[in-house]
Amino acid sequence: MPPRFDRVAVIGVGLIGGSLALAGRAAGVFGRVVGAGRTLATLEEAVRRRVVDSYTVDPRGAVANADLVVLSVPVRAMAPVVAQCRDALRPGTIVTDVGSVKRYVLDAVEPLLPGGVSFVGAHPIAGTEASGVAAATADLFRGRRCVITPGPRSDAEAVSQVRALWETVGMKVVEMNPDQHDSALAWVSHLPHVLAFAASRAVDRHFPQAAGLAGPSFRSLTRVAASSAETWVDIFVANRAQIARAVDRFLTTVEELRHAICAATPEELRAWLEGSREAHQRQLRASREDK
Amino acid sequence: MPPRFDRVAVIGVGLIGGSLALAGRAAGVFGRVVGAGRTLATLEEAVRRRVVDSYTVDPRGAVANADLVVLSVPVRAMAPVVAQCRDALRPGTIVTDVGSVKRYVLDAVEPLLPGGVSFVGAHPIAGTEASGVAAATADLFRGRRCVITPGPRSDAEAVSQVRALWETVGMKVVEMNPDQHDSALAWVSHLPHVLAFAASRAVDRHFPQAAGLAGPSFRSLTRVAASSAETWVDIFVANRAQIARAVDRFLTTVEELRHAICAATPEELRAWLEGSREAHQRQLRASREDK
Repeated sequence: MPPRFDRVAVIGVGLIGGSLALAGRAAGVFGRVVGAGRTLATLEEAVRRRVVDSYTVDPRGAVANADLVVLSVPVRAMAPVVAQCRDALRPGTIVTDVGSVKRYVLDAVEPLLPGGVSFVGAHPIAGTEASGVAAATADLFRGRRCVITPGPRSDAEAVSQVRALWETVGMKVVEMNPDQHDSALAWVSHLPHVLAFAASRAVDRHFPQAAGLAGPSFRSLTRVAASSAETWVDIFVANRAQIARAVDRFLTTVEELRHAICAATPEELRAWLEGSREAHQRQLRASREDK
Repeated sequence: MPPRFDRVAVIGVGLIGGSLALAGRAAGVFGRVVGAGRTLATLEEAVRRRVVDSYTVDPRGAVANADLVVLSVPVRAMAPVVAQCRDALRPGTIVTDVGSVKRYVLDAVEPLLPGGVSFVGAHPIAGTEASGVAAATADLFRGRRCVITPGPRSDAEAVSQVRALWETVGMKVVEMNPDQHDSALAWVSHLPHVLAFAASRAVDRHFPQAAGLAGPSFRSLTRVAASSAETWVDIFVANRAQIARAVDRFLTTVEELRHAICAATPEELRAWLEGSREAHQRQLRASREDK
């Protein structure tokens, strides 16, 4: 049965928060949606685009009497915003978030919540290099995966409602330990962003004219270097240990391939590349969203 | 004025050679096209799809009386195939290639050619992760860039005809020194392929289950790991010095970003990422094909 949240507060009305507001209303699971944020122009745009019904710059006003509070600000801003509005939260409210790092958010947010308020972290894996409410769309989540990461204190009924919410907007939901989530995402999301930011920077530094000859492979590699720096500073900082580990292991693999290119026989190099191609085929099958 | 090649030999009828055959005939610049290769099934498919008019497994038969010979086999196979058919080449024939590495091919092929046969290297930057004649299409080149890399011995009239050929099939042609080409492509094509092959391999080794959570950023990073290993062994080997240099400089940049993630202030990290975003914007503008 689809859940129903009559009063919803979306704190941070950007791509993800705005899209959830649109999707939740389109699916009939959200009643009135209040947007909260710091930037008046964004909030006004959100009302003009009918993403939210109303807005406030004071998160306390948004969360008072809310059934559901969605934290969709950058990861390191979540605890400060909760600290600001905790007194206005009433028992029975469910708080969730959409951050790309789950251990940091759980540890920072849960201890701040008053009794009777449940926190259930979620990560809808549906971002793009676009950002901002202008890019929000009701079908952003359809067919994509969402990881929910209940903590030891998460209420079972709240977990089930958060799961049902993401399923209702079209996502395939998996439940996972926050650390396991962060380690997996360090590999398949944070590392690709590190490489994109580094590749754009390195070419700019060492051979800027080469960009004029860039084909599709360079554009694929660097596409997400267009992502919001504000969002990614927070993800990188909040998951730095797992990212550093993935980067180190990745660099060891690159060194191995570099050595094969320079010193191995063509047959050995070919076997190495064939191994990668097979891994890539398995990964494509695993990530196919309709599986 | 468009050039005209009445008899064309395409040695290696894969994605690029097959697409050039289709595009050249569609544009009316090719008369009869003979395909040559080692694999009978591929050659038969090329005739069945009307990519070429006829085929032979003996390159000597293909190049005899040809006005234009297109070498579209893997980079390290070009000199051996030329050595095999050089006696059948007649004065006045233009030989070109479509390889992704230009210094290696020029040095290996040009000394083998008999007097009166001109060599003009070309690199149509239009590949995809697909390969084989089944993926060939007449509009593969439209709007994309082609680098031609005449050597010191290239005949001016032959250079002008090869340039006109690629322009006729829709490409924006730039002329460049072969070493400069190889250095630029090491950055914007060979490095992205190294990273794609290494990323698929590293995730497979260290966290294969993470692939189930892969979103668009991992798919972009690894897309070209589906490329032909045969093609890429040759590119990597033939351009190993330039690739090693680009990889080393790139790794230094990744280490710098890793250090910023682990040890810099969030403001410093943000400035680093903003610098990358700006570089990425410049690169997008530079690579925009309609500029």
